[in-house]
Amino acid sequence: MTHFASFADLRAACHDLPAADAQAKAAAERRDARLTKPPRSLGRLEELVFWLAGWQVANPPRLERIDVVVFAGNHGVVAQGVSAFPAEVTAQMVANFAAGGAAINQLSAVAGAKLRVISLDLDAPTADFTAAPAMEERAFLAAVATGYDAIETADLLCLGEMGIGNTTAAAALAAALFGGGGVRWAGRGTGVDDRGLARKRAAVDAALARHAGVLDDPLRIAAALGGRELAALLGAALAARRRRIPVVIDGFVCTAALAPLAKLAPDGLAHAVAGHVSGEAGHRALLDELGLKPLIDLDMRLGEASGAAVAALVLRAALACHIGMATFAQAGVADKL
Amino acid sequence: MTHFASFADLRAACHDLPAADAQAKAAAERRDARLTKPPRSLGRLEELVFWLAGWQVANPPRLERIDVVVFAGNHGVVAQGVSAFPAEVTAQMVANFAAGGAAINQLSAVAGAKLRVISLDLDAPTADFTAAPAMEERAFLAAVATGYDAIETADLLCLGEMGIGNTTAAAALAAALFGGGGVRWAGRGTGVDDRGLARKRAAVDAALARHAGVLDDPLRIAAALGGRELAALLGAALAARRRRIPVVIDGFVCTAALAPLAKLAPDGLAHAVAGHVSGEAGHRALLDELGLKPLIDLDMRLGEASGAAVAALVLRAALACHIGMATFAQAGVADKL
Repeated sequence: MTHFASFADLRAACHDLPAADAQAKAAAERRDARLTKPPRSLGRLEELVFWLAGWQVANPPRLERIDVVVFAGNHGVVAQGVSAFPAEVTAQMVANFAAGGAAINQLSAVAGAKLRVISLDLDAPTADFTAAPAMEERAFLAAVATGYDAIETADLLCLGEMGIGNTTAAAALAAALFGGGGVRWAGRGTGVDDRGLARKRAAVDAALARHAGVLDDPLRIAAALGGRELAALLGAALAARRRRIPVVIDGFVCTAALAPLAKLAPDGLAHAVAGHVSGEAGHRALLDELGLKPLIDLDMRLGEASGAAVAALVLRAALACHIGMATFAQAGVADKL
Repeated sequence: MTHFASFADLRAACHDLPAADAQAKAAAERRDARLTKPPRSLGRLEELVFWLAGWQVANPPRLERIDVVVFAGNHGVVAQGVSAFPAEVTAQMVANFAAGGAAINQLSAVAGAKLRVISLDLDAPTADFTAAPAMEERAFLAAVATGYDAIETADLLCLGEMGIGNTTAAAALAAALFGGGGVRWAGRGTGVDDRGLARKRAAVDAALARHAGVLDDPLRIAAALGGRELAALLGAALAARRRRIPVVIDGFVCTAALAPLAKLAPDGLAHAVAGHVSGEAGHRALLDELGLKPLIDLDMRLGEASGAAVAALVLRAALACHIGMATFAQAGVADKL
């Protein structure tokens, strides 16, 4: 069981990060240059293979085991009327995941991925962060550790979440980390109407005012303005980095949850790609702030790792080309004029 | 064996088009509204299922058989120095397809699709269209018929092409159909240098001047400025439409080849989606002219139906959600507040 003793202890872990392996990446690039296609004609599919090779320290890289891990949590800020669905839906959807009836069950199957869902104290929502820190240090660190310990050995990790109210937490986190208030970052989430959107924006602005004292510290921000499933996502991404497991980020909430890692270390998310840009209002701006370019742009805004799972299909396509294609020499195809 | 007797005969066939089935589409929409997700939260994945249902006249639609059909041809305009590869590469790549060594072999396998490659007189390139029509009426109609007859019963058809020099033909076609000259439409194709790009632009402009007399007729444009594999693609897309088989378009060449269908009938490409937007310079503008929004944007520019095959993965993901997800009632999940 991982134990982070303090913000400072976790911060130190977020700075002590391994890099990708340059030799494995270069080996993948050399093979790619000999395959029967014009140079760079597979575009980002090629870059994805190099990225996989570097982080897996292997060429060719593998996608034999893809894990989809979804964390679920509940949020006191729901009391502010920020969601179109009642808080009970979080637990109901976790049951739906267990029964195989949710979108991510189907998408994981298509991607050949193994889905695991981890609930974090659904019966005890975090505090309403318009009035108090969502989590005290100890509760936050426990949630981070839960996420950290959830990561098993895999070739690729797709991260996602479920939590009624958590697009408000994500908006508050993004605002605290990158500036701008509720107008910049709050969107319609699961589908709030104009009045609900106004309440979300107000909740974000109230949270920024309430927690002005912690806005210089990404981890304190994540504790005060985040949520348990967001903290677990941060822990999971950190664990993946330390084990050099490449990560596919899902949508707005997942991206916001991982953003503190990029704030704490300049290359803190180098092992991660943005699976997609969601239809949630703030996501594109958040990806831009992080310098992440999404793989998929299909106006999805479901969460559950759904966008990451679709992106995993792109990774499978990329790797299949790298492994299966003939070289110019093998195929007897003339190289360039 | 299909026989189009004249441009007028083919033009009539391009006007006599079946529509999608509104009832099957509406049935898919009704099922979608009951699935355990916020309304429209799967974005374009939902729209794709409705589109499939309408064209397959079935709800749920199916993707049991996906065909990838690649047409190959050679081009007299290669004599103008418009390609980075020699013309022999077309036949060499067809051999590579047969041996299973090309990108599209790997991508078809990942997509669970059946690949067929059809060569059109590779030993007899079309005429250099800077000096003469690429094809006379009879040769053009024969190539269209070859494509038409190549289409077998399938749940989805991904179209693609191979042909050294054919991005120049596609640029000439796009210019003739939508205005603008070589500067607007010619790109680097398989990777020509600046001087090669200048030659491509000049070839397009020379072709427009040479064939000014046919620019009011989309089919005569396709004959004079296109190529055999482009004509076959047009025939294949027409056959698919008449059998209500939904089509995934590949990149710049494939889109240009099908564009005459949209010029001849306002909804001539309603049964087709743009699989991707390629890195080839003119593709995004061409999609915009046709009102097509690509599913994938990964800077691919290989042809071979490679972008369409990656898009087929998105369609599989979309259909899996539609078929496999539980309804709110089945899962005991609360609907909106």
